[in-house]
Amino acid sequence: MYSVQNIIEQALAAGQKTLSEYHSKLILAEYGVPVAKEFLVKDYAEAQAAAKQIGYPVVLKVCASEAAHKTEQGLITLGITNAAQLKRAFTRLITKAQALGGGLLIQEMVHGARELVTGMTRDSQFGPCVMFGLGGIFTEALEDVSFRVAPLSEKDALQMCTEIRGHKILSGIRGLKPVNMEIISHCLQQLGQIGLDHPAVREIDINPLIVRDGCPLAVDALIVLDKPQPQLKESTAVTGGAGLEKFFQPNSVAVLGASQTPHKAGNDVIKNILANDFGGDLYFVNPKGGEIFGREVHPSIHDLPDGIDLAIIILPAAVTPQAIRECASKGIKAVVLAAGGFAEVDETGKKLQEETLKAIRDSGVRAIGPNTSGHISTPHNFTSSFFPLGKIPRGNISYIAQTGNFATHTMRYIMSGEHYGVSRVLGLGNKLDVEESEVLEYYAQDPETKAILIYLESFKRPRRFIKVARQVTRSKPVILLKGGATTEGAHAAAAHTAALASNDRIIDGALRQAGVVRAYKYSHLFLAAKALASMPLPKGNRVSLIAPSGAMLVCLADLCNQRLNINIPSLEEQTRQHLQDISAPYIRMRNPVDIWPSAVVYGVEYAYREGMEAVLNDNNIDAVVSILMLTDETGVPPLNFILELKERHPHKPIYITFTGEKKHMDAAKAYLEPKGVPTFNFIEEPFEVLDILVQCRYCMEES
Amino acid sequence: MYSVQNIIEQALAAGQKTLSEYHSKLILAEYGVPVAKEFLVKDYAEAQAAAKQIGYPVVLKVCASEAAHKTEQGLITLGITNAAQLKRAFTRLITKAQALGGGLLIQEMVHGARELVTGMTRDSQFGPCVMFGLGGIFTEALEDVSFRVAPLSEKDALQMCTEIRGHKILSGIRGLKPVNMEIISHCLQQLGQIGLDHPAVREIDINPLIVRDGCPLAVDALIVLDKPQPQLKESTAVTGGAGLEKFFQPNSVAVLGASQTPHKAGNDVIKNILANDFGGDLYFVNPKGGEIFGREVHPSIHDLPDGIDLAIIILPAAVTPQAIRECASKGIKAVVLAAGGFAEVDETGKKLQEETLKAIRDSGVRAIGPNTSGHISTPHNFTSSFFPLGKIPRGNISYIAQTGNFATHTMRYIMSGEHYGVSRVLGLGNKLDVEESEVLEYYAQDPETKAILIYLESFKRPRRFIKVARQVTRSKPVILLKGGATTEGAHAAAAHTAALASNDRIIDGALRQAGVVRAYKYSHLFLAAKALASMPLPKGNRVSLIAPSGAMLVCLADLCNQRLNINIPSLEEQTRQHLQDISAPYIRMRNPVDIWPSAVVYGVEYAYREGMEAVLNDNNIDAVVSILMLTDETGVPPLNFILELKERHPHKPIYITFTGEKKHMDAAKAYLEPKGVPTFNFIEEPFEVLDILVQCRYCMEES
Repeated sequence: MYSVQNIIEQALAAGQKTLSEYHSKLILAEYGVPVAKEFLVKDYAEAQAAAKQIGYPVVLKVCASEAAHKTEQGLITLGITNAAQLKRAFTRLITKAQALGGGLLIQEMVHGARELVTGMTRDSQFGPCVMFGLGGIFTEALEDVSFRVAPLSEKDALQMCTEIRGHKILSGIRGLKPVNMEIISHCLQQLGQIGLDHPAVREIDINPLIVRDGCPLAVDALIVLDKPQPQLKESTAVTGGAGLEKFFQPNSVAVLGASQTPHKAGNDVIKNILANDFGGDLYFVNPKGGEIFGREVHPSIHDLPDGIDLAIIILPAAVTPQAIRECASKGIKAVVLAAGGFAEVDETGKKLQEETLKAIRDSGVRAIGPNTSGHISTPHNFTSSFFPLGKIPRGNISYIAQTGNFATHTMRYIMSGEHYGVSRVLGLGNKLDVEESEVLEYYAQDPETKAILIYLESFKRPRRFIKVARQVTRSKPVILLKGGATTEGAHAAAAHTAALASNDRIIDGALRQAGVVRAYKYSHLFLAAKALASMPLPKGNRVSLIAPSGAMLVCLADLCNQRLNINIPSLEEQTRQHLQDISAPYIRMRNPVDIWPSAVVYGVEYAYREGMEAVLNDNNIDAVVSILMLTDETGVPPLNFILELKERHPHKPIYITFTGEKKHMDAAKAYLEPKGVPTFNFIEEPFEVLDILVQCRYCMEES
Repeated sequence: MYSVQNIIEQALAAGQKTLSEYHSKLILAEYGVPVAKEFLVKDYAEAQAAAKQIGYPVVLKVCASEAAHKTEQGLITLGITNAAQLKRAFTRLITKAQALGGGLLIQEMVHGARELVTGMTRDSQFGPCVMFGLGGIFTEALEDVSFRVAPLSEKDALQMCTEIRGHKILSGIRGLKPVNMEIISHCLQQLGQIGLDHPAVREIDINPLIVRDGCPLAVDALIVLDKPQPQLKESTAVTGGAGLEKFFQPNSVAVLGASQTPHKAGNDVIKNILANDFGGDLYFVNPKGGEIFGREVHPSIHDLPDGIDLAIIILPAAVTPQAIRECASKGIKAVVLAAGGFAEVDETGKKLQEETLKAIRDSGVRAIGPNTSGHISTPHNFTSSFFPLGKIPRGNISYIAQTGNFATHTMRYIMSGEHYGVSRVLGLGNKLDVEESEVLEYYAQDPETKAILIYLESFKRPRRFIKVARQVTRSKPVILLKGGATTEGAHAAAAHTAALASNDRIIDGALRQAGVVRAYKYSHLFLAAKALASMPLPKGNRVSLIAPSGAMLVCLADLCNQRLNINIPSLEEQTRQHLQDISAPYIRMRNPVDIWPSAVVYGVEYAYREGMEAVLNDNNIDAVVSILMLTDETGVPPLNFILELKERHPHKPIYITFTGEKKHMDAAKAYLEPKGVPTFNFIEEPFEVLDILVQCRYCMEES
């Protein structure tokens, strides 16, 4: 790659911000990207010779490092069919070229009905990212593009092609040749490679990438340079979550800032720890001394034994750095920093945050926060949350949250409004030290964690996050809600790739690469959790729906077909026949299943039990959603048959939702959920959740 | 239009199924659609003369009634630049033309980066419909098209252009001239007009419609003919809902099939009528005679007085026709037909349905059903529902439903799970007589109906429905869930317009024309109703959001920005300053409003009251959504302040949702909703509902 490096260095030395089209394409060609045949010419004689060699019709273009937007600026003549036309075009353009300090480029005229765009841009978080999409005027009009973080695997490249809405133009529509996907995939991977190899290349734009006879050809290209930025030397080393045990499995805990006053954080945290039956040693520190809940309060940390596992520091922000150092001096290796008032607030807080970071680095302690509402570890009967929660139900769902909500009021909702438990919860706060990818890694190897739900507003070590997630999503579902998707939009830029590289599009691509499924509703962070807590992940997207109302069947089938990736397939004939046997003769049974005629004839319990059993036994079905109609007059059956069905069909998830009388719905929820059958208030919810879970399954299979 | 009629008649006489490109364009040109310059030529001399007149480059095409897919079949030569090339092309194509019984067409070569598609197709329900969208290969690849029912207003035409995803290509992007929208609009209106004028024109396809210098030009066109179908002579006469009073305001009612047996329909219907305190005369008929609930049962309808307003016929399907005739003979003008087992079941039922229809027609009675679960009219204390409902709460929401659910179990959910009342509800059943557009008209003039929610699976008189809806949506919101959107897909067809004319796309266009807002979730039929029942329709889409959690603010702002048409605008400076005054200094207040710092300093009640009042007073804000945090420890304030805010701000809707402890949420709902403040379980729901309500507002303003 000597020549590539040379071109870039010479351009930088000359103070160029962009490479000329010719030099841009030389680099692309060097990396194996097919480019249009072209020659740089100095005079008319050379132009004539080049045109002859290429064969008419040709294109003549000004080629200079500053010659962007050639069409709009009149720096190009298309469709030159003979020498006379070439002469005229040459005469017109050579002066313009000279004015721009460049030359003229003669190029073959490339025809093709399909114009694509591809490029590379350097994202501030994720580094080099590759784009692919519809080119020409559609680049701006439709913004139908997808992104991936470099390096791209072949799978990544092919996936990003099928992801665009207009992906059908890549196939052989309207008598066109199918696009050679091997070449496209290679181009995309190589664009990422250029970004990785050459830090001075800030952006690459190929627009259009015209498809001729099925082969993509770079017709125009632009490389934007920048002084090589110091490469983000983010460590992507995988540690297996080592170092977080002291947080999740502490044997001894000190509370600094323990308080006798009810409703103060330093009191609530102790209440929570006691309510959760923490079995380790517990020490309270407060200069006032005295007792809290009948236990001794030590006036100073120096009164504590050495080597306590974890300290919860509930002190004003200003004394946090000092407290960290004192903890370290007593051999404490892990601290939870509860105080707010750091960089999230003002300049003083920002300075304090720097001091806190220094204290962490100097002392070598591991820290959660600051500005965290704490963490939870139910298998260890422990929490550092200072929001009054009481005994937190144990379960297999773990959260990582860049918000305190999941250790505070949202946890309170989960505890009072739902019936599943959690394993680990960590509120990241300002994540000066412990950050999401490390916690994710800990959860990955944690036998107590079945599924991971994440709320994030930013990625601290994005590339490490992808690497870790790619691993964990092979065996555990990871669902992420990205907050603030719209605050950081794409910036105005000369290059299309950069202009279209919104934070959100890049995150879409990165998460897809990582096998992480995006949620778009906050509520889904507990509705999906509930569905995962007690039921298996569905094996696929084939759902059977049982309802007491034709209109509900119709609406939900529409929702699945039009808005969700859920399939309501035909049943096996023996299943269908069985449903027919238990129904009325006048209705032809099929999936979705109208169960009411059967309920009218055989009773509600029998009809639902037989109907659900039949579809659970069907090989075409991966999951079952059943809408129970519950009113006194139509009959409220005992629901233990659903528990028996769950028992007999442990590999297929069952979700229950309702119509009818609210009090019976609430009673059914209160009966079924603690026994492991998730229920949903509104009939659309189980399908929205299934749409997420099915994606989780596909991510596992893809990896 | 003599020549147009002539062309069509001659083609039909010759047995042609399609018009040649030349004749198709003659018709289009006659209607004022700009077409490419072209000549039909018989021999080479004519071709040469035509080419000279047009000016090179030209296109030579085979022109015959069967010459579709010209590119794929090699029936076209593009870019002919001189006489020699013309000669070669002519020689090659003339034989093919003769083989097809056609001639050759010489056409100007039209260049333009933007290819559009437009056309007309005859929908089995809605009649002539016009399509517009992206042309060329994108027609199939992106299916980015929109439809409207003819005749189109200019507004309809312009709206359908801005509706496509790629509408930006119509503006002046990338140095292109903006497309002349006056011409486009005229073309679309005229395509509809051709459909209305000429019943023999089944389809029109213009693809591509190339934009040259901002002007659209039909470059290829196809008209598909059919024997003129007998025009659907659907009456669109508007009756003001006259004729339905007997259903909604009966003074006397007879129940045929009245039953003493509990849980039988003939018993439940009477229970319902009595529970709702019906004030008119009530007669029971059953051959067994006796008493029901202490009232006399007449053995035969002939024992009743003449001229009873309404009969509810709860008898087996087989005797329904006879019962109708007997009712008519006793001067009864309106009947509700409860029995199922008609065309929805089998062939016998279908025959029975025909007999029933004949009985209705012969006797001149008005009928709801058959296969209806009845109707409700709370202002008249009346219902014909045979599903045990008890006293139905009166309110201002009216339903039209092609399902019995809204007079049965869904009404039961509304009565037990929500706190709003209904005015009129009508289950259409098999709608042999009374159908949706007539009911809509009745609701339109009904002072008891504030908002109309509809569930439909088919339109009985589609054009009348549009006409009526267009009128009523000027003053009342109409929200419609269309069931079965995906069952009737587009059919395979030679013409693009027909291939893309899915039932669902046409309904989208028709409802947009009618000002009816589509819902996509069944639950929205009661969530939107609840929001409309006690609050005004928002004046626009500018919402202020108040929450106790930054993460919730961020997620919901994302949801509004990315997925909904809801704007979270900046506040007026004085509002912002007021919020700042009641908050902590370290947080810069803005919309969305993080209220928790204020609650910590001033208490929950004060913070929410002042915060909500401030944004309600703000001129930039049309509606307020407030997320209450309710836990014992953070404080559960008395909520009467919200009622006071509602009182003081009657023109801006307030919606409440929650986080925290479930029992407090339930209590808050039970307190607020009966007093007219709608609440929502999950924080996303008020925004999904607002998205629908804002569309309702826009529909009012547009009309």
